[in-house]
Amino acid sequence: MPPQQKPAIGALRLNADMGESFGSWKMGCDEQVMPHVDLANVACGFHASDPVTMRKTLRLAREYGVTIGAHPAYPDLVGFGRRSMACAPEEVEAMVLYQVGALAGLCRAEGTALGYVKPHGALYNDMMRDNTVLEAVMRALAAFDATLPLMVMATRDAAPTQALADKHGVSLWFEAFTDRAYDGEGYLLSRQKPGAVHHETAKIVDQARRIARGEPLIASDGSELVLSADALCVHGDNPESIEAIKAIREAVQRQTTQRGGS
Amino acid sequence: MPPQQKPAIGALRLNADMGESFGSWKMGCDEQVMPHVDLANVACGFHASDPVTMRKTLRLAREYGVTIGAHPAYPDLVGFGRRSMACAPEEVEAMVLYQVGALAGLCRAEGTALGYVKPHGALYNDMMRDNTVLEAVMRALAAFDATLPLMVMATRDAAPTQALADKHGVSLWFEAFTDRAYDGEGYLLSRQKPGAVHHETAKIVDQARRIARGEPLIASDGSELVLSADALCVHGDNPESIEAIKAIREAVQRQTTQRGGS
Amino acid sequence: MPPQQKPAIGALRLNADMGESFGSWKMGCDEQVMPHVDLANVACGFHASDPVTMRKTLRLAREYGVTIGAHPAYPDLVGFGRRSMACAPEEVEAMVLYQVGALAGLCRAEGTALGYVKPHGALYNDMMRDNTVLEAVMRALAAFDATLPLMVMATRDAAPTQALADKHGVSLWFEAFTDRAYDGEGYLLSRQKPGAVHHETAKIVDQARRIARGEPLIASDGSELVLSADALCVHGDNPESIEAIKAIREAVQRQTTQRGGS
Amino acid sequence: MPPQQKPAIGALRLNADMGESFGSWKMGCDEQVMPHVDLANVACGFHASDPVTMRKTLRLAREYGVTIGAHPAYPDLVGFGRRSMACAPEEVEAMVLYQVGALAGLCRAEGTALGYVKPHGALYNDMMRDNTVLEAVMRALAAFDATLPLMVMATRDAAPTQALADKHGVSLWFEAFTDRAYDGEGYLLSRQKPGAVHHETAKIVDQARRIARGEPLIASDGSELVLSADALCVHGDNPESIEAIKAIREAVQRQTTQRGGS
Repeated sequence: MPPQQKPAIGALRLNADMGESFGSWKMGCDEQVMPHVDLANVACGFHASDPVTMRKTLRLAREYGVTIGAHPAYPDLVGFGRRSMACAPEEVEAMVLYQVGALAGLCRAEGTALGYVKPHGALYNDMMRDNTVLEAVMRALAAFDATLPLMVMATRDAAPTQALADKHGVSLWFEAFTDRAYDGEGYLLSRQKPGAVHHETAKIVDQARRIARGEPLIASDGSELVLSADALCVHGDNPESIEAIKAIREAVQRQTTQRGGS
Repeated sequence: MPPQQKPAIGALRLNADMGESFGSWKMGCDEQVMPHVDLANVACGFHASDPVTMRKTLRLAREYGVTIGAHPAYPDLVGFGRRSMACAPEEVEAMVLYQVGALAGLCRAEGTALGYVKPHGALYNDMMRDNTVLEAVMRALAAFDATLPLMVMATRDAAPTQALADKHGVSLWFEAFTDRAYDGEGYLLSRQKPGAVHHETAKIVDQARRIARGEPLIASDGSELVLSADALCVHGDNPESIEAIKAIREAVQRQTTQRGGS
Repeated sequence: MPPQQKPAIGALRLNADMGESFGSWKMGCDEQVMPHVDLANVACGFHASDPVTMRKTLRLAREYGVTIGAHPAYPDLVGFGRRSMACAPEEVEAMVLYQVGALAGLCRAEGTALGYVKPHGALYNDMMRDNTVLEAVMRALAAFDATLPLMVMATRDAAPTQALADKHGVSLWFEAFTDRAYDGEGYLLSRQKPGAVHHETAKIVDQARRIARGEPLIASDGSELVLSADALCVHGDNPESIEAIKAIREAVQRQTTQRGGS
Repeated sequence: MPPQQKPAIGALRLNADMGESFGSWKMGCDEQVMPHVDLANVACGFHASDPVTMRKTLRLAREYGVTIGAHPAYPDLVGFGRRSMACAPEEVEAMVLYQVGALAGLCRAEGTALGYVKPHGALYNDMMRDNTVLEAVMRALAAFDATLPLMVMATRDAAPTQALADKHGVSLWFEAFTDRAYDGEGYLLSRQKPGAVHHETAKIVDQARRIARGEPLIASDGSELVLSADALCVHGDNPESIEAIKAIREAVQRQTTQRGGS
C-alpha cells in the first residue's frame, strides 16, 4: 500500500492516538487510521503500549510517512492515564524524559525520529490548567531537544502559554478538537454538560472546516470563538470515526488549497 | 568534591550496579561507591529505579566522571530482575531498546551520553547461556548504536561470543568477577556450591590482581583459568565492600602502571 | 435473561477463562459465554483483570449460577501470565494465597463464594511438569481452604498427581481439552506440531463426546488414550467458539443423561 | 522473645505501619517495632509490600499478639501511595475490597484474622476531606465485614464522620497523632507550616499523655482542642523513634492504669 499524500505545508495536520494496545490486549484501529492522519501520538508504556507494540506502531507510521509524536502519561496502566495524579514537578519532568527517551530509542532503532511531544490524558489536562505541570513538561523538552514542538490545546488566548514556551525556549503546536463543544474561554466543555460531544459527522466536519478557514465557532456561552490551530485531534476507534477522519481530511485539504491559492 | 583520577587507558575498569533504589525505597551506597569506580551500570526502571532516581544517578556519575552504562532487565520489579522469564526474542530486543532509550533520553537531558550496555540479573545469565537471548540483545544494540559496547562475562573461551558479536557488528567488553569462584569452563560456580563466593578481602584483591596481570586463577576443577577481561565487576552494598573496592582499585592500578612501565 | 439449566451432577462441567479484561482494555465475550458454562476461571489481577473487572465478573457469574474459580497467575500483565518465571516455591505459595484471597474478598462482598482454584497459563504449565511448583500451589490451597478443589490437567496417569494431593490433603478436579491433540503420555501436543489444535467444530465436539463417554482418544503416537475428567476446558473468544461451546454442552449433557439412565 | 503485655481494655492502642518492604527493598524496623505496638497496619501490595512480605509480617504480628489491620492504598508503588489519584468511587470501593481480601487470605493461611482497616497515605487523606471517597471505603467494609472497624482521624468534631459510619453500618476507631501539630479544626497542620512536626521526644510523649488523659492540646490557632481517640499513630523508622514509641507506651499505660483505678 503506497503512502498517502500528505497535506501541503501550512495545512492543519490531523493527529490521532496510536499504539494504545498493551500486551495481549488490543485497542484502536491503527492500521485503518494511519493512512489518513499526519501525526501519530504514540503511547510510551505508562498509560498504554509496551516495547513490542511501540516498535510495531513506529514501523506502521514510517510506512505511511506519518510524523511520530511521543505521548507520555502518568504511570497508570489500569486507569489508562486518565486519572489525575498529584505528582511533583521533578517527577513529571523525569517521567516525560523517560518516556520520550524510550520512544526515541525505538525510533533510532527503526531509522526514524521523533517529531513532537503531546502529553496524554490527565497529564495533558493538568498541564493545561496548572502552569507548574506545564513548566515541568517544558523543562523536559527544553533539556531533551528544544526543537521538538510541544502540542497544547488551542484556547481563546494563546498568549500565556506562548509566554511560558518562550521562557523555556520551547516551540508549540496548537491543536483544536472537531468533535467537542467549547466554553467561552476556549476550553472543552465538560462531558457532563449537554451538547459537549458532537456525534454527527456533518457537525464534526463543519467544525473542522471553520477552524481550517479561521472562521469562528460558537462557544457554549454564545460568544464567537476563533481558534488558531496547527493541528486537529481526531479519533479512530471504529468504522464510523474512520469515515469521519476521511471527511475531515478532505474538508481541511480543500480549504488549505483554496487558502494557498488566494 | 573533585572527580577522582581514573586508571590509565588499558587498565581494568571497575563496574558496579547503581541507581537501584525505587521510589521511596533505598538500595546501595551509590554516593560512597561512585568515586571509586569507572563504569556505572544504571538500572532502567524494569528491575529497579524510576525516572527521578535514574536522573539523580546520572548526575552523580557525571560529577565523578564515571562512564554511564545502561543496565536493562526483565520487567520484574518485585523479583528485582533475578527471575528468568521465558520472553520471546523480539520481546527481549524491544525491551532492551526501550530501556536503553529511556536512559539515553535522561542522559541527553543531562548533557551526557551512554557509554555501554550491560544486561542485568536473569537477563544477563540467560544471555550467557542461550544464544537466542544473546543475539536478541545484540540486535538491539546494533540497531540503536553499534558503537556502544556490550558487556559480557569473560569465560575460558571468548571465541563463540565474539563470533556472534562480529556477526551483528557489535563490540564487546568482557568482565571478570573478583569475589566468585569459577568452574572449569570459566563460568561462575553456582552459589549453592561451597567456596562459590569469596568473603575475605585479601582473597578478592588477590583474584583481582591475578586477572589484571593475566595470571591464571585456579578453577573449581583444579585447572588453570586465564580470563582476558576489560572490566571487573564490584559490589558496594556496605562499608566493608566499599573498602574492598578501594583495595581492588589500588591493586589494579599499580599492576597497570607496572605493565605500562615494562 | 434467565439462568441456564446446569448439567446433572456427575456430568462433565465446562470451564472457561473469564474476567480477562484490564482497565480500558476488553478481552473475551464473557456475557455471551457465561450462560453456557458451569465454571468461571476468574483472573485475579496478576496476568489480567483489575478489582472493578473482577467484581463485574463475579456479578455476571452469580447471575447465571456459574461456580466461581480463582485463576491465579505469575505477576506478568504485559505477558498475560504466559511466560514461565523462575519463582521460588514460597513466592508461588504466597502469590497464590494473595490472588485467591483478593478474589475471595470480592466474592464475600458480593454474597457469593469461591468454588475452586485453577492456576493460569505458565503457572499451570509449570505446575504440571514441576512438582516443586505443584506442591507450592497445593500448600497454598491446604492453608487457605482444603475443601476448595484444585483443577489440574487430566493425563494418562493421574496417580502421581493424586498422591501429592493426598499428601497435602487437597482435592483435585481433572480437566480435559476438546480442541487440542494429546501426546502418548496424555499431555497436550505442542502447538508447534502439526495437528496440535483442532479447528473444526465437528472434531471438537467428537472429542468432547468421547471424553464424556469414557471412550479413548487417539494420541499423537497412535496409542489409545482414556482421560478421566471432571471438567472440559472451553474458550469463547469469538462467535464461532461460542457456537462450539453450545455444541459441546449439548453433546456432553445428552451423554450424561444416557449414562445416568443406563 | 516473649510477647509484650498489651494495654488494658479501654487504653489507647498504638498503631504503626508495617510490612512496607517490597521485594528486595527493605523499609522500616518491623522486628524492633512490633513488640511495642498493639495494631499493625499491614501494606497490601498497592503502595508497598508483596505477597511474601505480607505473609512474613503477619507471622511477626501473630508472634507478638498484635492485631492485624489492612492498610489499602492507591495503586502507586513508585509514589508509595502518597500521591492523590482521581479514582472513581467504584474504583476505590473495589480496590479496597481487593486489598483487604488479599490480606485476609494470607491471614487465613496463617490461622489468624483481620482486626480492622486503615487506608494509607493519599487514600487516607482523600477520605478525610472528601465524603465521596470516605463512603466508597465504608461501602467496601460494609460489604466485606461490617464488624471490622475503620480507622479514621480524630478531629474536633467527630459527628459528621460518625453519621456516615452509622448510615453504612460501619464502626469507627479514631486515631490521634503524637508528633504532629493540629489546626483549629482538629486537622493536621500542613507540613509546610513551621512547627507542624514535633521532633523532641518529650513533646511527643506529652502530647500522647494529654490525649490519653482527655486533656486539651493547643491548636495552631491558639484554641484548645480535645481529641477523643481510640488509638495513637506512631512511627518506628529508626532507633530514636523506637525509643519514642516505648516512652509513649509507658505514658499511655500508666495513664490508663490511673484512670482505671479512679
